Amino acid sequence: MTVPNDPNRKSTADSQTSHEFAPVMSLERQLPQLVDHADVDKIEQLLEHYPNHELVRAVSLLDDHARGKLIDLIAPELAADLVEQLPTVQAVQLLEEAEPDHAAAVVNELPSDLQADLLSDLDEDDAEAILLHMEPTEAQSARELQQYNEYEAGGLMVTELLRYPDSWTVQDVINDLQAGAEKYRDYQIQYAYVTDGNQFLRGVLRLRDLLLGSRSQVIRNIMIPSPLSVRANMSLEELHGFFQQHHFLGVPVTGDNGQLVGVVQRADVDQAWIEIQDRSFLRRQGILRGEEIRVMPIWERAQGRLVWLSLNIVLNLLAASIISRFESTLAAVIALAAFLPIISDMSGCSGNQAVAVSIRELMLGLVKPRDAWRVWIKEVSVGLINGMVVGVLLGVIATIWKGNWVLGLVVGMALTINTLVAVSIGGLIPLLLRRLGKDPAVASGPLLTTVTDMCGFFLVLSLASAWLEYLK
Amino acid sequence: MTVPNDPNRKSTADSQTSHEFAPVMSLERQLPQLVDHADVDKIEQLLEHYPNHELVRAVSLLDDHARGKLIDLIAPELAADLVEQLPTVQAVQLLEEAEPDHAAAVVNELPSDLQADLLSDLDEDDAEAILLHMEPTEAQSARELQQYNEYEAGGLMVTELLRYPDSWTVQDVINDLQAGAEKYRDYQIQYAYVTDGNQFLRGVLRLRDLLLGSRSQVIRNIMIPSPLSVRANMSLEELHGFFQQHHFLGVPVTGDNGQLVGVVQRADVDQAWIEIQDRSFLRRQGILRGEEIRVMPIWERAQGRLVWLSLNIVLNLLAASIISRFESTLAAVIALAAFLPIISDMSGCSGNQAVAVSIRELMLGLVKPRDAWRVWIKEVSVGLINGMVVGVLLGVIATIWKGNWVLGLVVGMALTINTLVAVSIGGLIPLLLRRLGKDPAVASGPLLTTVTDMCGFFLVLSLASAWLEYLK
Repeated sequence: MTVPNDPNRKSTADSQTSHEFAPVMSLERQLPQLVDHADVDKIEQLLEHYPNHELVRAVSLLDDHARGKLIDLIAPELAADLVEQLPTVQAVQLLEEAEPDHAAAVVNELPSDLQADLLSDLDEDDAEAILLHMEPTEAQSARELQQYNEYEAGGLMVTELLRYPDSWTVQDVINDLQAGAEKYRDYQIQYAYVTDGNQFLRGVLRLRDLLLGSRSQVIRNIMIPSPLSVRANMSLEELHGFFQQHHFLGVPVTGDNGQLVGVVQRADVDQAWIEIQDRSFLRRQGILRGEEIRVMPIWERAQGRLVWLSLNIVLNLLAASIISRFESTLAAVIALAAFLPIISDMSGCSGNQAVAVSIRELMLGLVKPRDAWRVWIKEVSVGLINGMVVGVLLGVIATIWKGNWVLGLVVGMALTINTLVAVSIGGLIPLLLRRLGKDPAVASGPLLTTVTDMCGFFLVLSLASAWLEYLK
Repeated sequence: MTVPNDPNRKSTADSQTSHEFAPVMSLERQLPQLVDHADVDKIEQLLEHYPNHELVRAVSLLDDHARGKLIDLIAPELAADLVEQLPTVQAVQLLEEAEPDHAAAVVNELPSDLQADLLSDLDEDDAEAILLHMEPTEAQSARELQQYNEYEAGGLMVTELLRYPDSWTVQDVINDLQAGAEKYRDYQIQYAYVTDGNQFLRGVLRLRDLLLGSRSQVIRNIMIPSPLSVRANMSLEELHGFFQQHHFLGVPVTGDNGQLVGVVQRADVDQAWIEIQDRSFLRRQGILRGEEIRVMPIWERAQGRLVWLSLNIVLNLLAASIISRFESTLAAVIALAAFLPIISDMSGCSGNQAVAVSIRELMLGLVKPRDAWRVWIKEVSVGLINGMVVGVLLGVIATIWKGNWVLGLVVGMALTINTLVAVSIGGLIPLLLRRLGKDPAVASGPLLTTVTDMCGFFLVLSLASAWLEYLK
């Protein structure tokens, strides 16, 4: 996803605002027929006029065959625009279904970071076939970028950048900009990068410096020397922090030996950050692979979900085994059975609140793993208040409902204590996971609920066992 | 959060990469003492050299008094840089604790969108006191921006923009850029906007057009005419879609009568989007207000969490009432008690997976509320597979564990059927909430688990009641 600075021309004077599009109802119904009839002109016209989210939706509703055909039909530039908008799984599917030479023509038009991402996600054979049909220089650069992880500076950078020797004059640069206008159309050209004879980064030129300076000046003298740069292996998290600290639109990337290899743009980092949050959301909700859309094959979707479900059965059995141990108590006071799921769920909720605050504070850099003590103090103080409130509430309800105040005391006490346990674990587990280098967003929830379930069931049932004579 | 295009100069040649900072261990220990001793020079030096996340953390660890004093001590520009980085709650706290004239000097330095956000969040009295001390033009523009919602184009836009009459020449513009260099330092000046005598937007100038054109040309002739613009009331969601579709760095905003009022930058939209996702994450985890950091007062934090906890007790009691109705069955087959929480939790998981996919597909625009039927088909096909797998798994475990195959059949069947119920509800509830204009991310989970709990308990216990003679 490059961010060129070209506001599109709009020809019609009445379409000043962006939401006045043609009626959108029928696109998803029109497209399959148009593809079927290979009506290229009409398709290309639609692609230019419909808002992207409608296009993405219409394309995702096509069957596999029609999707491949669509890409084979339309101009590579248009297909590339479309591919840029699609979720990765779909973009990959689409390239796999197209003819290799058509797919290659499309990939040629993509920004270098996306080329590398998609080629990495394709089957090796498909990727190889596409690379063979690509322009040699594009293929070469895609191969080079594939060595980087998708979510580090090397994987996020584009190699399309303006790079000038430090001995050039302002006029030389302007001549090059004029000569290369077509090629640079999609470049992000807020900055040009100045290198020495060894391709080492020496400075940054802002367009405004070119504008305000005299044309005979050597750019070495008007560039900003020794600019900030990042290494190709800088992580997304570090890059996100970097752009929060520095108000740049992009930062140059240097390779192992200090040579300028590309530029990472703020917009791409923000996009990747949003993607990662999305994946993390799916993971947290039990789709451990971090990706599922409903056009994926059923078996693949079922499998992706089963990983977590089968793990969860095991965790649940641990908690259930506690209940089984107290079967005689439970049989004696069967009214307790209705309260076990309540204690489990309520404690889970309190714990999850604490998990959420810890994860967020970790992300914002407000806490670190070494702050465990401070976090715990803050959590138990809130947990004490909330535990008492919900404990008394549930205790009173239980007393009235079942007509036994000892039963009310048992469930109320259990809930109060277990709330304290839950917020303690919930607050600390993300810190511990972070210290161990794991993603706290995913594993915190399951670990929390397993422990709080076990502890909650144990508290209710052992208190009940102790006071059994008053409960019968 | 403006995005000026000024790469900072770095003076030392060896600090080519951004992660070579001074040792960071001691900042949070140094800062309180330095504030206490009012050592302004040392503090300002630290602020310039430490990475932002360390600063944010160190500031958040100060007590209220020290935070106010810190802002009163340091230069307003530095304080403004700091305020820009802090979470909103903290930034607001900090301005409230500083003297109004100091706070005003800081707010003067902030970009206009952030000024309006913070002033809206302050106590009315505090905000008024600060506005009185601000520069009149800044105060005026902040008051105007406060009328917009924080998350619509008017609230996200900055009013700092380059605006030129269409009769000017390139040379006129360059002269103005040169004269205003200091003032424009923090502007986002990839584009300049061209207006007619009535302040209507007529065109957009790219810096590169100024650079490549001759200096005597009138800008009307080199501008891009009739550029895309958005209305001040465009929602964040629409803006997010807009920037996904158009590769611009910013888009001009027009008021009700079509006059140019500001510019919304891509980076600000991305930031706001990330903020909204953050809030949505906290809400989903039971912090309904969408904001909590641990420096907030305990009572406020406890209250914020109790809203959801007390609501949740009610939902839980609904489910528990089902169990109570079947007490005699449960008393007769006490082994079932251990399986009730398992059925509840496993179904909740399956349902949550479906919720997650629906929410994500809604966000990506891949599904719409009217797609309910297609979504349901896709969900039950996966639910059938997964329900059978986990049902058989749990059934076999129950048979072996409790030595009764009818019991295994009961829990297995209940889990299979309830998985189908869960994925159906989970897949459809977000679509329904979206149709009703509610945020699907927050309410889907609780609604889902309440229904699946009730349904799951009912299935196990009514199946058990029917086959009671084989279970005893």
